Amino acid sequence: VAKRLEKFKTTIFTQMSSLAIKHGAINLGQGFPNFDGPDFVKEAAIQAIRDGKNQYARGHGIPDLNLAIAERFKKDSGLVVDPEKEVTVTCGCTEAIAATILGLINPGDEVIVFAPFYDSYEATLSMAGANIKCITLRPPEFAVPIEELKSAVSKNTRAIMINTPHNPTGKMFTREELDSIASLCIENDVLVFSDEVYDKLAFDMEHISPTSLPGMFERTVTMNSLGKTFSLTGWKIGWAIAPPHLTWGVRQAHSFLTFANSTPMQWATAEALRAPESYYVELKRDYMEKRAILVEGLESVGFKVFPSRGTYFVVVDHTPFGLENDVAFCEYLIKEVGVVAIPVSAFCLDPEDGKNLVRFTFCKDEGTLKAAVKRMKEKL
Amino acid sequence: VAKRLEKFKTTIFTQMSSLAIKHGAINLGQGFPNFDGPDFVKEAAIQAIRDGKNQYARGHGIPDLNLAIAERFKKDSGLVVDPEKEVTVTCGCTEAIAATILGLINPGDEVIVFAPFYDSYEATLSMAGANIKCITLRPPEFAVPIEELKSAVSKNTRAIMINTPHNPTGKMFTREELDSIASLCIENDVLVFSDEVYDKLAFDMEHISPTSLPGMFERTVTMNSLGKTFSLTGWKIGWAIAPPHLTWGVRQAHSFLTFANSTPMQWATAEALRAPESYYVELKRDYMEKRAILVEGLESVGFKVFPSRGTYFVVVDHTPFGLENDVAFCEYLIKEVGVVAIPVSAFCLDPEDGKNLVRFTFCKDEGTLKAAVKRMKEKL
Ligand SMILES: CSCCC(=O)C(=O)O
Ligand SMILES: CSCCC(=O)C(=O)O
Repeated sequence: VAKRLEKFKTTIFTQMSSLAIKHGAINLGQGFPNFDGPDFVKEAAIQAIRDGKNQYARGHGIPDLNLAIAERFKKDSGLVVDPEKEVTVTCGCTEAIAATILGLINPGDEVIVFAPFYDSYEATLSMAGANIKCITLRPPEFAVPIEELKSAVSKNTRAIMINTPHNPTGKMFTREELDSIASLCIENDVLVFSDEVYDKLAFDMEHISPTSLPGMFERTVTMNSLGKTFSLTGWKIGWAIAPPHLTWGVRQAHSFLTFANSTPMQWATAEALRAPESYYVELKRDYMEKRAILVEGLESVGFKVFPSRGTYFVVVDHTPFGLENDVAFCEYLIKEVGVVAIPVSAFCLDPEDGKNLVRFTFCKDEGTLKAAVKRMKEKL
Repeated sequence: VAKRLEKFKTTIFTQMSSLAIKHGAINLGQGFPNFDGPDFVKEAAIQAIRDGKNQYARGHGIPDLNLAIAERFKKDSGLVVDPEKEVTVTCGCTEAIAATILGLINPGDEVIVFAPFYDSYEATLSMAGANIKCITLRPPEFAVPIEELKSAVSKNTRAIMINTPHNPTGKMFTREELDSIASLCIENDVLVFSDEVYDKLAFDMEHISPTSLPGMFERTVTMNSLGKTFSLTGWKIGWAIAPPHLTWGVRQAHSFLTFANSTPMQWATAEALRAPESYYVELKRDYMEKRAILVEGLESVGFKVFPSRGTYFVVVDHTPFGLENDVAFCEYLIKEVGVVAIPVSAFCLDPEDGKNLVRFTFCKDEGTLKAAVKRMKEKL
């Protein structure tokens, strides 16, 4: 294996989902729904396949999808973007992250990430040869330590990575936090790479795109995807929105990482993004019910539960149960209880930062969530 | 844009396909069929979507597809590979190439490529920080200059990239050439990265996978895809087959470039790979007819046509028409004649190597091929 990837292991999601299957455990680990996406989106994919939309898409996306993304983004952020010059379709948000980092970051550039973070951030930054500076968000609020962030920014800082709503913690970046970050970025000429795949799962407060703050569009890459919003995580359609000078870098990396993505799924994604607002309202309502079931359940089991304001994840403190650390707890939970969760240290540069925390997902039907809680009540 | 991508432009395929649309020209440039893939594969995708196979696939591929790839590979190469440990599903062969190079090549490693080459080779090698050594294959036979290759191999050589059948030239690597390359690799502990996406379009001679030669499996990554064989270039399912120690590197890069690829399309690809041999026989027969139409047509127009023994491309010498170079010729061809071809210099490190050559594809229906020939006869 090349040095740029030497320190990484099989991803925690792969490890945990395969343990779930092996032990017949209820999988509240990897974030994929155990219910299906909406019929109108599935039918749109089927129609595209039948209509023979099966050859290479344009590299940066079929025109209809680029347009639908721009239209949806206008509704969400208020910003008007050029579908042809500022939108790039990718193989899920994971590829958007890789293309953004490999397309815009040079070896030695400093990039600031907030821990805990989605594991691909560190790996792709390592592939780009970036120097990673890590700011830890700590319970209970996982607030951004602004002074610490300020002193982390240097003249070598090229970008700050943001994920709001935040996986794994369920934290959402507040307007105050984003304003401070924006000022810092503008003063120091720093980019923002913003992963917003859970933007439609913002429960207790309004989602704010960093790019919508004054002066920020020109320095921000905003990333999103179909998967979480439409419960179709296996379709792997994502995108990056950025001004032309940043889009150029993203597209160049994308051209040579995958060139283009699934044509029929792009047609279906365009259809999905034209869903009426009621779709989003129902989605949020359904997830708030699921959140309530899981949060109450975890509290009744005896966990200290931190607030999940967005995403379909919730983080708890497992220390009441006396296991050594998060990895040991998750192992016990799989083998002795039959439930899979994700150890938060897998999202941290320093495993100490995550050692008291584990993440559960509530993107499962009620019965599954209740069954998991029941197992934990009986056996923990 | 990051330095690693600074020298690259919009890919030639993107440029040419967009000019084709703009000028209403017949597109014999980018290699995608203008006919549809087989119904049984499309129906398998539709069934998977309807059956709710719409969530994250396992990162390295759904088990059924890994197995189908291993079974097909056994029929093709005679080799028995472990579907779980030696097969990785990717977002088209383009991602297989990127994951192989980013997962296995370190900055400063020397990698030998044969020019002309598919443009992503150079770009991904540049992303990996490789030193590229280029050996030019020259008309009429595009034979491997073995002595030149021998003197190019040094103690810093980490890999040789092979593409057989070869895009753009239609050349196929002979057993003699592959034997010589294999000896060189074994003597000097060099890897082979072999792109074989056109293996089912081998017309005049038998396709040989370098990995099937004695001592080569342990040092070879073999890449292939659904797109060309099943006329579904827009579905973007590819794969890499390699021994476990190389697969590890490929998978690590893949985990963070895209994580996984489209679940329903993976189910359909498994079905495709179980096609009866008659499917492959007919495919080859159809393409041989198309090749005959285009080759005869190009000859009658007055081109010097080089033999296309495989792929769905044919390279010609355009100099009888007196244009300055391949780029000028292709521009004239689009604007004055209404046909798109690809300038071969776009596949070369040194544009001089391609300046007399242009590539046409014959992955189009008879009527389109004949109409293109007619335009050229009238207007060239
Ligand atoms: C690509 S696997 C990760 C899925 C996910 O978003 C999560 O579980 O964090
Ligand atoms: C990914 S676009 C390239 C398609 C192709 O194989 C070619 O035209 O060479």
